[in-house]
Amino acid sequence: MHIDIISVVPGLLEGPFSHSILKRAEEKGIASVRVHNLRDYATGKQKHIDDYAFGGGAGMVMMIEPIARCIEALQQERTYDEIIYVTPDGKTFDQPMANSLSMKQNLLILCGHYKGVDERIRERYITQEISIGDFVLSGGELAAAVIADAVIRLIPGVLNDETSALTDSFQDHLLAPPVYTRPAEWQGMEVPEVLLSGHEAKINEWRFEASVRRTQERRPDLWAKSGLEKGELKSNKK
Amino acid sequence: MHIDIISVVPGLLEGPFSHSILKRAEEKGIASVRVHNLRDYATGKQKHIDDYAFGGGAGMVMMIEPIARCIEALQQERTYDEIIYVTPDGKTFDQPMANSLSMKQNLLILCGHYKGVDERIRERYITQEISIGDFVLSGGELAAAVIADAVIRLIPGVLNDETSALTDSFQDHLLAPPVYTRPAEWQGMEVPEVLLSGHEAKINEWRFEASVRRTQERRPDLWAKSGLEKGELKSNKK
Repeated sequence: MHIDIISVVPGLLEGPFSHSILKRAEEKGIASVRVHNLRDYATGKQKHIDDYAFGGGAGMVMMIEPIARCIEALQQERTYDEIIYVTPDGKTFDQPMANSLSMKQNLLILCGHYKGVDERIRERYITQEISIGDFVLSGGELAAAVIADAVIRLIPGVLNDETSALTDSFQDHLLAPPVYTRPAEWQGMEVPEVLLSGHEAKINEWRFEASVRRTQERRPDLWAKSGLEKGELKSNKK
Repeated sequence: MHIDIISVVPGLLEGPFSHSILKRAEEKGIASVRVHNLRDYATGKQKHIDDYAFGGGAGMVMMIEPIARCIEALQQERTYDEIIYVTPDGKTFDQPMANSLSMKQNLLILCGHYKGVDERIRERYITQEISIGDFVLSGGELAAAVIADAVIRLIPGVLNDETSALTDSFQDHLLAPPVYTRPAEWQGMEVPEVLLSGHEAKINEWRFEASVRRTQERRPDLWAKSGLEKGELKSNKK
């Protein structure tokens, strides 16, 4: 997979893509991410990339032309499966979207800044608008990093232990159960006995029930989506 | 405001906090963010910070002791309003939570990695568990960066134009309207005429109606929360 990201603050994305799993994915040749500085596509002496909003009001708007020039230059090099704009009014990102994007070859992500991009850019080029949540960031860069991370870690071979992603929260509409490691007792706080029992079936049952309980308590909305009925708990996870 | 972040991959957070508004907030003395390397609080030759999960299964668990030592060392220096653990099973982050956190003085954010932290850390130290969305990341670092960004930009004096944050999406349960800048016509695509009219009341009305339409179409859930009724559209935004 290859991901191109267009940003006015490319430095903001240096850390996220030179550490941890994204670095490993790049070293293994599984995924590559390139950040493109929108300012390199600006023209004129001032290299402007933003301008006042028509109709007035606070906040600047990202101009059409540098973005159009950048997208079209990148399109000369590859065909994108999706051209994504990260914006608070996009579709809310979730694990099924991450799963689906993880099967694409080439993604282009445009990061908004200021009040956002001129609407005509969205109409002309963007194939998918994604929001990572109901909050506002100072720019789309962190949202792009979040999407890239969530997507790339799902590509086979990226995580060291491939079964690890399958037991994460959300893959089955359930939150993950609590986890414990040594010491078995710390300042009077003990690990649940069943986890020390070595009895695999009982451990699985405890974990599944803990997942269900946590999901019911914390996320009744997810629980409703899981399609599990109380009476079926034990039979469902065998 | 001061934010301390505990991470096993501190380098991942270098970019986000040395650019853009977070850097500006720091330069202005409004907010400061420090990232602490959890490994500095590990003991033993190996400096281990993770161990196998009790009960078996894929994925490592972050050990209690380095985290406890780190949190307690930081607590010697300041009293935290909240000790936050970023985790997929936390409460979903949104703009009201960002508003509320922006009024605190000292925040500590613990980033999970691998399968997460030993549950006893959560029981003993954590006052708030936050998820940035229903997806799984390779670690809590990007989530911590997202929270810090969303929160810090709301502190008065951080954004250059203070009225700017007030017209963002979500502050009033409505998505922001489309924005446009020059040129007024680009490749046959024109800016809505009203925005060029200079008629402020009409422009406000157009923007409000565009916000409402976009919210209804894209986010019926948010629209329901807005408490606005169709008949009241015009009177509501005056």
